[in-house]
Amino acid sequence: MIIKMKKDSTKKQYQKLAEFLKSKNLEIRDVSSEFVHIFGIIGDTSSFEPVDLYAFEGVDEVTRVSTPFKKASRSFKKEDTVIKLEHGIEIGKDQFVMMSGPCSVESYEQLRTVAKVVKQSGAHILRGGAYKPRTSPYAFQGLGEEGLQILRKVADEFELLVVTEIPSSDLLPLFEKYVDVIQVGARNMQNFELLKTLGKSTKPILLKRGLSATVEEWLMSAEYIMSGGNEEIILCERGIRTFEKYTRNTLDISSVLTVKELSHLPVIIDPSHAAGRWSMIEKLSLASLAVGADGLIVEVHHDPEHALSDGAQSLKPKKYLQMTDELKAMAKLLGKTFI
Amino acid sequence: MIIKMKKDSTKKQYQKLAEFLKSKNLEIRDVSSEFVHIFGIIGDTSSFEPVDLYAFEGVDEVTRVSTPFKKASRSFKKEDTVIKLEHGIEIGKDQFVMMSGPCSVESYEQLRTVAKVVKQSGAHILRGGAYKPRTSPYAFQGLGEEGLQILRKVADEFELLVVTEIPSSDLLPLFEKYVDVIQVGARNMQNFELLKTLGKSTKPILLKRGLSATVEEWLMSAEYIMSGGNEEIILCERGIRTFEKYTRNTLDISSVLTVKELSHLPVIIDPSHAAGRWSMIEKLSLASLAVGADGLIVEVHHDPEHALSDGAQSLKPKKYLQMTDELKAMAKLLGKTFI
Amino acid sequence: MIIKMKKDSTKKQYQKLAEFLKSKNLEIRDVSSEFVHIFGIIGDTSSFEPVDLYAFEGVDEVTRVSTPFKKASRSFKKEDTVIKLEHGIEIGKDQFVMMSGPCSVESYEQLRTVAKVVKQSGAHILRGGAYKPRTSPYAFQGLGEEGLQILRKVADEFELLVVTEIPSSDLLPLFEKYVDVIQVGARNMQNFELLKTLGKSTKPILLKRGLSATVEEWLMSAEYIMSGGNEEIILCERGIRTFEKYTRNTLDISSVLTVKELSHLPVIIDPSHAAGRWSMIEKLSLASLAVGADGLIVEVHHDPEHALSDGAQSLKPKKYLQMTDELKAMAKLLGKTFI
Amino acid sequence: MIIKMKKDSTKKQYQKLAEFLKSKNLEIRDVSSEFVHIFGIIGDTSSFEPVDLYAFEGVDEVTRVSTPFKKASRSFKKEDTVIKLEHGIEIGKDQFVMMSGPCSVESYEQLRTVAKVVKQSGAHILRGGAYKPRTSPYAFQGLGEEGLQILRKVADEFELLVVTEIPSSDLLPLFEKYVDVIQVGARNMQNFELLKTLGKSTKPILLKRGLSATVEEWLMSAEYIMSGGNEEIILCERGIRTFEKYTRNTLDISSVLTVKELSHLPVIIDPSHAAGRWSMIEKLSLASLAVGADGLIVEVHHDPEHALSDGAQSLKPKKYLQMTDELKAMAKLLGKTFI
Repeated sequence: MIIKMKKDSTKKQYQKLAEFLKSKNLEIRDVSSEFVHIFGIIGDTSSFEPVDLYAFEGVDEVTRVSTPFKKASRSFKKEDTVIKLEHGIEIGKDQFVMMSGPCSVESYEQLRTVAKVVKQSGAHILRGGAYKPRTSPYAFQGLGEEGLQILRKVADEFELLVVTEIPSSDLLPLFEKYVDVIQVGARNMQNFELLKTLGKSTKPILLKRGLSATVEEWLMSAEYIMSGGNEEIILCERGIRTFEKYTRNTLDISSVLTVKELSHLPVIIDPSHAAGRWSMIEKLSLASLAVGADGLIVEVHHDPEHALSDGAQSLKPKKYLQMTDELKAMAKLLGKTFI
Repeated sequence: MIIKMKKDSTKKQYQKLAEFLKSKNLEIRDVSSEFVHIFGIIGDTSSFEPVDLYAFEGVDEVTRVSTPFKKASRSFKKEDTVIKLEHGIEIGKDQFVMMSGPCSVESYEQLRTVAKVVKQSGAHILRGGAYKPRTSPYAFQGLGEEGLQILRKVADEFELLVVTEIPSSDLLPLFEKYVDVIQVGARNMQNFELLKTLGKSTKPILLKRGLSATVEEWLMSAEYIMSGGNEEIILCERGIRTFEKYTRNTLDISSVLTVKELSHLPVIIDPSHAAGRWSMIEKLSLASLAVGADGLIVEVHHDPEHALSDGAQSLKPKKYLQMTDELKAMAKLLGKTFI
Repeated sequence: MIIKMKKDSTKKQYQKLAEFLKSKNLEIRDVSSEFVHIFGIIGDTSSFEPVDLYAFEGVDEVTRVSTPFKKASRSFKKEDTVIKLEHGIEIGKDQFVMMSGPCSVESYEQLRTVAKVVKQSGAHILRGGAYKPRTSPYAFQGLGEEGLQILRKVADEFELLVVTEIPSSDLLPLFEKYVDVIQVGARNMQNFELLKTLGKSTKPILLKRGLSATVEEWLMSAEYIMSGGNEEIILCERGIRTFEKYTRNTLDISSVLTVKELSHLPVIIDPSHAAGRWSMIEKLSLASLAVGADGLIVEVHHDPEHALSDGAQSLKPKKYLQMTDELKAMAKLLGKTFI
Repeated sequence: MIIKMKKDSTKKQYQKLAEFLKSKNLEIRDVSSEFVHIFGIIGDTSSFEPVDLYAFEGVDEVTRVSTPFKKASRSFKKEDTVIKLEHGIEIGKDQFVMMSGPCSVESYEQLRTVAKVVKQSGAHILRGGAYKPRTSPYAFQGLGEEGLQILRKVADEFELLVVTEIPSSDLLPLFEKYVDVIQVGARNMQNFELLKTLGKSTKPILLKRGLSATVEEWLMSAEYIMSGGNEEIILCERGIRTFEKYTRNTLDISSVLTVKELSHLPVIIDPSHAAGRWSMIEKLSLASLAVGADGLIVEVHHDPEHALSDGAQSLKPKKYLQMTDELKAMAKLLGKTFI
């Protein structure tokens, strides 16, 4: 941590701060010039945050020089983390892993119809919401446990795996029973109580980036889960909130590269929620593969006009299958396997 | 809702959409010109969201013309909602209500020291975190139930009320036992499971605005609680995330006026979290009063340098008392009572 | 345009507005329901902006239903605009056009060294700044006219074309003399006086997107130039400003798709300024090709450590040539020609 | 400047960087710990920007520890800058200075009608646009020189001063002839050629903050003008672009406090452009005074419904005079004089 004092700060102010730092067993190393009083502190600073030091009068600026996350950091673990699932899936290696299915589970028939297409595309992971976080309390909230049961049943029929979103801690036992990968939604990325609970789960976690979370904060949320013991995290970029309103959110495609630089965790992209328009999914999916993402999570629906949620961003089967064909060709060119 | 069709949309595409709308008992009224096919739909559209209609091919743009919230809306209820608490407090009327105290409850002695200052200022509501949502899993997470007990004990000693943040649904019974106003933190503003639970509470809710929530989404979160039966909501603006980084967040002071136009609910400001710098609290508090907020929630600490969290944004007692004096004078000028 | 009146608006308020609209030869068509007074207006509304109508008391919301640009709009012209340049370059068709070179022109030798690499890669357009817009008045501001002369000389030597940024209207004659494509920088995207001047130029314009411009505003700036008579515009996405700070800006890759939906103009990507980190250029370039951009503008420097500006985002020759090889392979797969 | 090397950086990479720094006469002071290689550099670093050092391989992070502006900085000049104008106006001292008038100058009669109200309110500075930067090339662009003449004539009649926006460098002679304070619009904040030209003017400059400019960048633009010799700058906050769309922009009221901490220059607020809704002007103006701004620039129009631009954010005379009365009372309470 680097601390710069205000130009008019007093010796007494500095001493008060210095005492505090020494009480934390930190060493002070001066780098002041003629014009500015500045020093680095060396040692374990994890018990406080940089901003906390602004409480000391005379402090002008505090800059952290090491990342605040540990287990999620590439400095901590150099090798890419690979999440192994059934059917030979290895997320984070040389595969481009496709997770697809409807936004919401609506019925056994609906899911069966879509799952057939998912299977046909060569994908192995079925997505579908059983508990839906909706901004309006009056909108369809999902089938709940029944939805989980349908997901499991249909997935088993087609030999697929299941990924779906958990809304709250108390449902973990149910999710561990029915689900293969547990998703944390964007709005819950900093629901720390939920993250702590998932730290004790044995299932891999798909952690979506919050609407306005920096990559650093996103990795700190991964750290929450990892510090609880569960180190199987797949990150998922799904668009951030900006001033641009033509798309639902702004896909931050560079975040894949940031994650790869700062962390060893795998990262996939959700183009459906990022764009909010089905007309953009195909091209954004190709770009996701090109940029180096480890996979995709995409919404597919056989009858999007009558879907109970998010029809606008769902691909129809024909378009979806055309897209997966393109992805397979590009994956091959890039030395990856579509799965 | 107003729907505009694409220039090259077909008659068949329109018919598919029209059938869907009629099946929902909606009436279609055309406003097309020579250049554009456009129509309004009249009736109850609460069962779907505008974006859902983008699933229909040929649709270019869908615009909602009425607010998505009902109970929280000023069209629904014209008169200001006033939240009545003990000691003659009426939030949302002619009072400027001060909630103050430390960021975290650290010990009985600490809270007692600060509470004394709070009482001296003429304020009646004591704030203090027992469960702290921290971005790092390694930082101080609060005293938990012990913190709630200390809050209650100290508040009773000084005849103060207690406001503090609830981290998850399962703790509601504990909060109903110890707390007067239950706070929902910014990161949980769209934790819909928590909001549903609080809809059944008998305590008033202080609902903080999410880091990147529009005022409309914030009011939708209020609607979640209200639709459950609890209509005693106090909104709290605490800064939004923008590109400007000198302050911790950007205080959106105009949001107070937006809330007053769109809703009947009272709204207060938290300048401490908005600025993240104690040097700005005094002036932002005066501005909050001037703009028409119904109160403030402010961090005060007798020894911010050694606070276990957020010392940087806490006022020292002397500065705090000077500020409350200024607020009293300005409140008088504006025909309000500081309480 | 759709206008919604406030719930408590009066008949008199409506009449005042209706008179104004009729005086503009606009027709009013009612779509009111039992709960809301709302109507569409039909006719030519280009003489005022939707927000202007908020000046009328009683108006609650005004929504534009057609895009504000005409010549730049795909409704106006269905076929893609193709900008033809020497050497068989056709921007906006089946080519992936590469513009590359150093951030700043530093000397004849420097530019010659880089141009050789550009030529070797198979690219035909040389970039390089002669006038540099720097945030600090104390930083290197470019070689000025000498820079333009060097650009021309080196480009002719290698049979390349020149693209470079114009800082102000009065330099247009100089640019028409030396330059093949004139660039408008992001900070000047809404320098309307400059745009008007360029409307009279015979050279194609490379129009960068402003730091916080919506795609609609960007297209309105194109409209400014086009309304002056110059319809040869190439748009250039270069990242927008968001809260995320790991990258210099946030590349809004979806904007390519938005442009293609709303307009007929070609659009390229500048990954160097978007990311601000050379380590990300290769992957972002591949993603740009995959998403459907018509080309790239990229910074290359043989000695970035000693570049006078933006060395951090410049590729070294070896890395650049490796990247263009990858682009060629992917372009082939996608049915495009790298040029 | 503080430089942190990557964990896997090599000795050779460090040496290359060290040589470069020494060639710039900079001293290196090490603050490394066991886990991280980090050092400060001491000396004059104004010839390059921190990001330039990322061009060196092995560099992980570069942090600037002193502000990039000099003349605009409070470290450079401790005392508040006070801009003295005729009629005893002193911007930046104990006055609250009101600049008011219509958005656009439309005619002599219109301006005269509004100026009468401005005079009546006790204000001394008349605003009004003669050259209007409009996003649409088809909208009213202002009366040009005729507008300047009308401004001067009406201002002289009522003994008022004139502030109005300059669109481009070549018009400076005209502005110096007719105008008392020259305004730089938000869209031109980083039109560096214009800033350089104004550095040679003898008139005070009202510098609006760009739509998405940080306070630091805004002060760098002031530095551009000051480095040219003109140190009479009045800053003007007018709202920044965020995701919130109910208001036209988001008024960043805290920026006044940031400016006061970092700089000695005076700063005023433009609530009209910030909110874009006349219903919010009164309260935002009171908040501006309370937060410590040195004045306001506000739009007033006797017939906003028929104004040729921005009627939506203009106050009517009655409302305006009521507001100035409230401002006078509050100014008195705060020890300031409304002028």
